[in-house]
Amino acid sequence: MAQVLRQCVVTFVRLGSTKVAHSTPGIRLNNHRLYLKLLGGGVLCQFSLFSWKGSRKPDVDSSDSWMSEPITSLDELKQNGDDMKCKMEAMIMRIQSEFVHAVEKEELEEGGKKFLVDRWLREQGGGGITCVLQDGTVFEKAGVNISVVSGILPPNAVQQMRARGKKMKGANLKFFAAGVSSVVHPRNPHIPTVHFNYRYFEVENDDGEKHWWFGGGTDLTPYYLEEKDVVHFHKTLKKACDGHGKQLYPKYKKWCDDYFRVPHRGESRGVGGIFFDDVDEPSQDKCFEFVTDCAESVVPSYLPLVQKHKKDGVSYPEREWQLLRRGRYVEFNLIYDRGTKFGLYTPGARYESILMSLPLTARWEYKHSPPEGSREAQLTEVLKNPREWV
Amino acid sequence: MAQVLRQCVVTFVRLGSTKVAHSTPGIRLNNHRLYLKLLGGGVLCQFSLFSWKGSRKPDVDSSDSWMSEPITSLDELKQNGDDMKCKMEAMIMRIQSEFVHAVEKEELEEGGKKFLVDRWLREQGGGGITCVLQDGTVFEKAGVNISVVSGILPPNAVQQMRARGKKMKGANLKFFAAGVSSVVHPRNPHIPTVHFNYRYFEVENDDGEKHWWFGGGTDLTPYYLEEKDVVHFHKTLKKACDGHGKQLYPKYKKWCDDYFRVPHRGESRGVGGIFFDDVDEPSQDKCFEFVTDCAESVVPSYLPLVQKHKKDGVSYPEREWQLLRRGRYVEFNLIYDRGTKFGLYTPGARYESILMSLPLTARWEYKHSPPEGSREAQLTEVLKNPREWV
Repeated sequence: MAQVLRQCVVTFVRLGSTKVAHSTPGIRLNNHRLYLKLLGGGVLCQFSLFSWKGSRKPDVDSSDSWMSEPITSLDELKQNGDDMKCKMEAMIMRIQSEFVHAVEKEELEEGGKKFLVDRWLREQGGGGITCVLQDGTVFEKAGVNISVVSGILPPNAVQQMRARGKKMKGANLKFFAAGVSSVVHPRNPHIPTVHFNYRYFEVENDDGEKHWWFGGGTDLTPYYLEEKDVVHFHKTLKKACDGHGKQLYPKYKKWCDDYFRVPHRGESRGVGGIFFDDVDEPSQDKCFEFVTDCAESVVPSYLPLVQKHKKDGVSYPEREWQLLRRGRYVEFNLIYDRGTKFGLYTPGARYESILMSLPLTARWEYKHSPPEGSREAQLTEVLKNPREWV
Repeated sequence: MAQVLRQCVVTFVRLGSTKVAHSTPGIRLNNHRLYLKLLGGGVLCQFSLFSWKGSRKPDVDSSDSWMSEPITSLDELKQNGDDMKCKMEAMIMRIQSEFVHAVEKEELEEGGKKFLVDRWLREQGGGGITCVLQDGTVFEKAGVNISVVSGILPPNAVQQMRARGKKMKGANLKFFAAGVSSVVHPRNPHIPTVHFNYRYFEVENDDGEKHWWFGGGTDLTPYYLEEKDVVHFHKTLKKACDGHGKQLYPKYKKWCDDYFRVPHRGESRGVGGIFFDDVDEPSQDKCFEFVTDCAESVVPSYLPLVQKHKKDGVSYPEREWQLLRRGRYVEFNLIYDRGTKFGLYTPGARYESILMSLPLTARWEYKHSPPEGSREAQLTEVLKNPREWV
């Protein structure tokens, strides 16, 4: 019955609209340009009779809109639809495509650039698809990367995982990792920078025992504090979490605040969001559903902020402040970020994809301090003392 | 006899000239604006009869020209002239002043800015003097910092030192560190960036046993390769080393190439120079003389390059290339540099002084690659495959 109703919804969907409908709970729409055009209230009423959870259309069905060939062949992804490695690859391919198209639409509306799509393979196994938009009209730099890699874990990664409590036995541990990650640095300082990353890990001990877990998160880095925007952002992430347990948002919100901290400056990178790692309960499928919901919440949490501010006026000091804040972003990413470190220390790492998160331009001034009472000081205050937003 | 002849030289020295005479081997001149005005050839002839080494004027005698009050009181520095802690502080105070004045002179000649002098004290003991010139005419950012600090070594520093073979016994190790460090990022891409750092360390085991050692180096990061400039730079450093053993320059040149390597890019930060650490032979005084000679070679190795290129024409693509290379500089400093890491992880670290080494502006482009045969590609080639220059 659920399947029948899904077909109804898809029938009512129309191409080419400006609204983004990904966030509609329980409904999977595979093109970001789609929205629901309901033909009548009567149809709407029927929706509430059914639960849509757990009956998603396979991600692989969206393959026509993917940015390129996947890393694993499409046939293999279709045939192994129950294997989490394949499920995850198909999901991140879809999320990449949806996010890239949503961002590109905002850019092209202002006569800007298209994303460059760069598919690469890794000698040691696997590869990735890096989509980059650089020096655009709305976006100064936007990168959306998926990677699907496997091989033998480098020693420092094993050490890092053991430090986190993983029971890794043996020296040459086989691993598989698939993830989507993105950083968007808009040109206008009134639009925040967004970052998200959703990933799946498998490690096999020497004795054949397998570990698996999911990790990820989405977080926001504004240059100027617009409380309404931050509340909208956090509310959207909370909604994605709440369907999987009311305890998740507060826990992952705090984890995010703790993770994106720049200790030497005593401030956070931004106003947070959610962050989690080592998620392996209650079941692999439930974890996958959770991570999928989080990944789907990126577009509705962030794109409205782009739409709202992309035409805001910008003063020279506002631009300078944005560049200084981007310097702080670089500091976090290069000194503290575990993903960057893990990436760069991995033999055969594709540093171009890892460093894609860095802004096009950044600035460092000695002892810059915003004037008391200024909007810049207001942001700094929030970065020093993270708040609750929902 | 040597003392008598030194007096002769000093008599012939005149204030206010534009030539820099620090590099005159074996002769210590305490003001960068001095040069030798020889009254007659007869006097010159007598010079060769004597050796000047080991009879330097105490650094503390130059205190009138220092950038600020030292961290330790001048009286204490004078009274404890035989203690290496005090000798080192006086030496780095002099070197800071000489380098700042030499750089500032080039800047002021073009109607630019003066250095800001910022003396700071550290709660846990000691302090520093940070001199910064920012957004100038010739220099985009120049920082010259001295620090004289003491306290208890943080655990990660102990670990790092043990990994280098130091026999550190106990948990709460008292330390003393004094050093001068500087990075100069000129505006014109035809002038290279220079970095130098000379430091002295003392660590006391729980049982009272003391370790001491010197470290340091000077290295050059050009944006365009001017072979003559690089040769001049290396030759000047070699000359400083050679007085203390012919084996030193080749050894420390290689160490520099190895240290300033950016593994993820498979290239060096620049064209090298010299780098050393844990120097504690043949004696404390000999080590001090060596480090002093190295520190004195900075002005004659680098300033001629500034003078030569500060009025060179610059194209837009040349400026863009410079900003990209500055991005690489940031990568090295934040990801790999031991000094930065040690600094930022030290409780109560003054991050503003540590991060002073970062350029005013830096840029990152996805997969930037200079056209084959271009001057940018020529530099990249040298960075990938370090050369011998002398």
